[in-house]
Amino acid sequence: MLSVVGEGTKLETSMLMKLTHYLFRRLEQCGALHTFGIPGDFALPLYAEQEVYGLETIVCAHEPGCVYAADAYSRLKGLGAVLTTYGVGGLNMINPVAMAYAEHSPVVVISGAPELAGRQENPSFHHLVKDYGSQQRVFAEVTCATTSLTDPASAAAEIDRVLDACLSFKRPGYIEIPRDMTAVEIPIPESPAKCFTGPAVDSEALQEAAGEILAACRNAKRPVLYTGVGLRRYNLVEAAIQIAENWRLPVVSSVMGKAAFPESHTNYGGVYMGRMGEAQPRELLENADFVLAAGVIFSDVNTGFWTAKIDRDRLIDMRDLEVRISRHSYPHVPMHSLLPYLASLDPQREGKPLPTLHNTEHERPAQSENTQLTTVELIAALGNLEQHRFSFLADVGDAWFAGLELNVDVFMAPGYYASMGFAVPGAIGAGLAAPERRPVVLVGDGAFQMTGNELSTLAANRLNAIIIVLNNGYYKMLSALDGHRDYYNLHPWDYIKYAEALGCSGTRVRTREELSRALKEAETASFPFVIEVILHRDDHAPIMQRIKNYFSRGSGLES
Amino acid sequence: MLSVVGEGTKLETSMLMKLTHYLFRRLEQCGALHTFGIPGDFALPLYAEQEVYGLETIVCAHEPGCVYAADAYSRLKGLGAVLTTYGVGGLNMINPVAMAYAEHSPVVVISGAPELAGRQENPSFHHLVKDYGSQQRVFAEVTCATTSLTDPASAAAEIDRVLDACLSFKRPGYIEIPRDMTAVEIPIPESPAKCFTGPAVDSEALQEAAGEILAACRNAKRPVLYTGVGLRRYNLVEAAIQIAENWRLPVVSSVMGKAAFPESHTNYGGVYMGRMGEAQPRELLENADFVLAAGVIFSDVNTGFWTAKIDRDRLIDMRDLEVRISRHSYPHVPMHSLLPYLASLDPQREGKPLPTLHNTEHERPAQSENTQLTTVELIAALGNLEQHRFSFLADVGDAWFAGLELNVDVFMAPGYYASMGFAVPGAIGAGLAAPERRPVVLVGDGAFQMTGNELSTLAANRLNAIIIVLNNGYYKMLSALDGHRDYYNLHPWDYIKYAEALGCSGTRVRTREELSRALKEAETASFPFVIEVILHRDDHAPIMQRIKNYFSRGSGLES
Repeated sequence: MLSVVGEGTKLETSMLMKLTHYLFRRLEQCGALHTFGIPGDFALPLYAEQEVYGLETIVCAHEPGCVYAADAYSRLKGLGAVLTTYGVGGLNMINPVAMAYAEHSPVVVISGAPELAGRQENPSFHHLVKDYGSQQRVFAEVTCATTSLTDPASAAAEIDRVLDACLSFKRPGYIEIPRDMTAVEIPIPESPAKCFTGPAVDSEALQEAAGEILAACRNAKRPVLYTGVGLRRYNLVEAAIQIAENWRLPVVSSVMGKAAFPESHTNYGGVYMGRMGEAQPRELLENADFVLAAGVIFSDVNTGFWTAKIDRDRLIDMRDLEVRISRHSYPHVPMHSLLPYLASLDPQREGKPLPTLHNTEHERPAQSENTQLTTVELIAALGNLEQHRFSFLADVGDAWFAGLELNVDVFMAPGYYASMGFAVPGAIGAGLAAPERRPVVLVGDGAFQMTGNELSTLAANRLNAIIIVLNNGYYKMLSALDGHRDYYNLHPWDYIKYAEALGCSGTRVRTREELSRALKEAETASFPFVIEVILHRDDHAPIMQRIKNYFSRGSGLES
Repeated sequence: MLSVVGEGTKLETSMLMKLTHYLFRRLEQCGALHTFGIPGDFALPLYAEQEVYGLETIVCAHEPGCVYAADAYSRLKGLGAVLTTYGVGGLNMINPVAMAYAEHSPVVVISGAPELAGRQENPSFHHLVKDYGSQQRVFAEVTCATTSLTDPASAAAEIDRVLDACLSFKRPGYIEIPRDMTAVEIPIPESPAKCFTGPAVDSEALQEAAGEILAACRNAKRPVLYTGVGLRRYNLVEAAIQIAENWRLPVVSSVMGKAAFPESHTNYGGVYMGRMGEAQPRELLENADFVLAAGVIFSDVNTGFWTAKIDRDRLIDMRDLEVRISRHSYPHVPMHSLLPYLASLDPQREGKPLPTLHNTEHERPAQSENTQLTTVELIAALGNLEQHRFSFLADVGDAWFAGLELNVDVFMAPGYYASMGFAVPGAIGAGLAAPERRPVVLVGDGAFQMTGNELSTLAANRLNAIIIVLNNGYYKMLSALDGHRDYYNLHPWDYIKYAEALGCSGTRVRTREELSRALKEAETASFPFVIEVILHRDDHAPIMQRIKNYFSRGSGLES
């Protein structure tokens, strides 16, 4: 820390650093090698300093797209960062930041703000709503930690506190930088701060819980490992694989946790979604006498709209901050510490047979090459891609339900918060975070009409994502819940012409044969390539069909 | 109100009404004959009831567009309404609602929400962030009144309270309706509630203030009426005209107040923007010995980035809630009551000469028909349109500064909050609110890339707006403040192809002659018509040029 600097004392340059440069260095240390944003006047000095520092920035078309891109980036790299101006920029990000909160994705929002110096005299700055605290208070509702860097002495510690909270709790955070603080030199710690302190651990409770879990597993006849999104967020996939193999557990994934556990693994048994999902994971989980849930969020979607039937007496529910076993819980036993410890233990189940698991991505009945393409046939065609070369991103609705049917390595979707418009901008973040994988986007026409403009950002950054637009001219998810309404009709767009207008290319397909040719054409594209799939308005992915049947029987939203 | 209903008492049907039907009726009574929104599952019963009730709804492409449309509608009709789902919908509206707050535009957000019935058992609904209060708390930061309708007994009064606050204070409001409250029958008042109670009035203070103002005006040699956005919001234009004519005052408009006072009036002297603006309004206002400001918001933009020089000792500042005269103020003397009262008074200034005023929209030097079009020439061409047939909407940046140079009847822009992306969706609201005027949108390419997708909504509703896209491939406003940066370059779009992809038509122009032909072609279009104007990157509207000169002299943002 900076000590008193008297006359004649030469200050070590390493002990002072520009506030923004310290922040950018910390972002890099924590995994964010890019920022996403749109420059605006209160953020111009931030952008200028970022250029001096040399951190790469991606300018998107509209603020919601910046956050979706950073969210996808965070899901692959561990942290995403956005850089925005005040008011018009920051407040345009509330919904996707709320999504990052709900989906446990650490995205840090860095917002410029009006100068401290002018705040007394000039209360009516543009981009200001009620007062200088409004924006921070709004962000406090959708993040785990916020700060406004108004004091040079505490700035470094505040930056470290927010980043550590984001990474420890896997939630978004907010850092506000008044314009006249951007280039202020601040005292910085001599050794780099931690990126990840992690949730608090009670070691004795952890031992006791582990013992209880081990004993329950040892006696189990039909044990299952139930994997959630927390595995990927806390980088615990290897520990989960060890447990699955050494403890001889079949693995069922939650909807949000899809592809956290490798879907090509022999122990893998599919995605569970209660009565909405497939038979095999349902049989495994609903008949289990020991369910080890790892980072599963028990939301309405994950539980198939509360149709999940998991025996609570047999449930070990490892969460971010605690573990719940049957009817009791151990506070301060976070999954992050418990799971690796469990992986080191032996429940003495060698030789126990795994149940016979079939590949959930079974053969699907196909029509002729030249009849109108169905969603099921689209799924089959995508299943033939070499999965190690692609990251999949799915938007809300049938695009997502179609994606759930695929066995893939990398899958991203707004599986809890269900915000339309995630997938196209998400591909920006996915393409930059994992350049060795080409993003494949599954998106409905409704969601595409919201954020399809980020094709432009993909093109500008030469990210050759494949964008599959499911065109049925309809808000189909809503009609599945509610029946036909005229106001679910979408205004028809020519999605290929649209793509071309934004510097991309693409093709429209109506049959299996055309789809097959389009996928080949996409292989060679060095720019984003859009495949517009014309679907019949009444065609559905199997999950959507089950949801439609369920709600049309009156068991649904109105109850 | 509902009285006790005993056995045998037949309840008057008029005393109970479905909650939503009461709300829709109140919206109509207060001026909103349309709603704007996107259906989503927590709002589906709201949409269904709206269809039964028969209120027309406009489904937009993305939530920010819904609010911009409602904001423009509100500026013309007095109230705008949006209908949205929870979380993903509502939280996507925060920025444009914040803009409506900053710009004093009453927009009421009606949001569906999770059922009250399920809140105890099922805490992990999709679209939920932290808790069931989060969204209302966020909206409290950007509105003047919020409510969540959880109690049938108070629902009607709560609806009335929020609408009255919106209309009295000209700010947005928020009404949250849990899904299981949608169709609940509620007791309603026997006679319709007021839409406008108005800010509190101290009649004696009003008399005293009016006397002081009258005396000051009587003695003034160079008096000026300085008009603000409040005139239009409080429907006080007629009173302002009376004062200008009877008191013989020249009129200068603030930036935000543009076109509130008729720009064709003989007393009209132009828009004042401090050192950034034109000479005539500056001379009038800065040399005045009596300035009667009516609804002016003294923001940085309105004051030409604090370069305004108005003698505070001579300033009468009529605000929404009070009047400030020189260094003292009269609380509870709102402009809404004071201005009409002043209009009835006589400061005995008959025969006083008005200063000679020239039309601010003077002839502009033009190049040949076939050299590259300039912004100044574009302004001149638009000035030749018959103004009574059009509503003008300008987006942020040079589009806005170009628009400020026109003498028009109706002009809408985000003049305080400066949120990019307002104008294209704004045209939806303007077209519906004033169908006798065709919307003309001036929008830069940066803003168009944000919300140009709402061309789709214009087309779907057969609103034949003329959209003029200023294409210079650059975030030019930022470069005016900050010099050249690579990250101000915009990815090039083919805006005409884009328009065609969305069911519109258009043409690209590079010269005066092409512009003139395009405007003729637009005249006959029954769908939205896009004119893409190719401009040189260094071409500016005169105001932008002055801003650029000002900030490049270092008097600017960094100081």
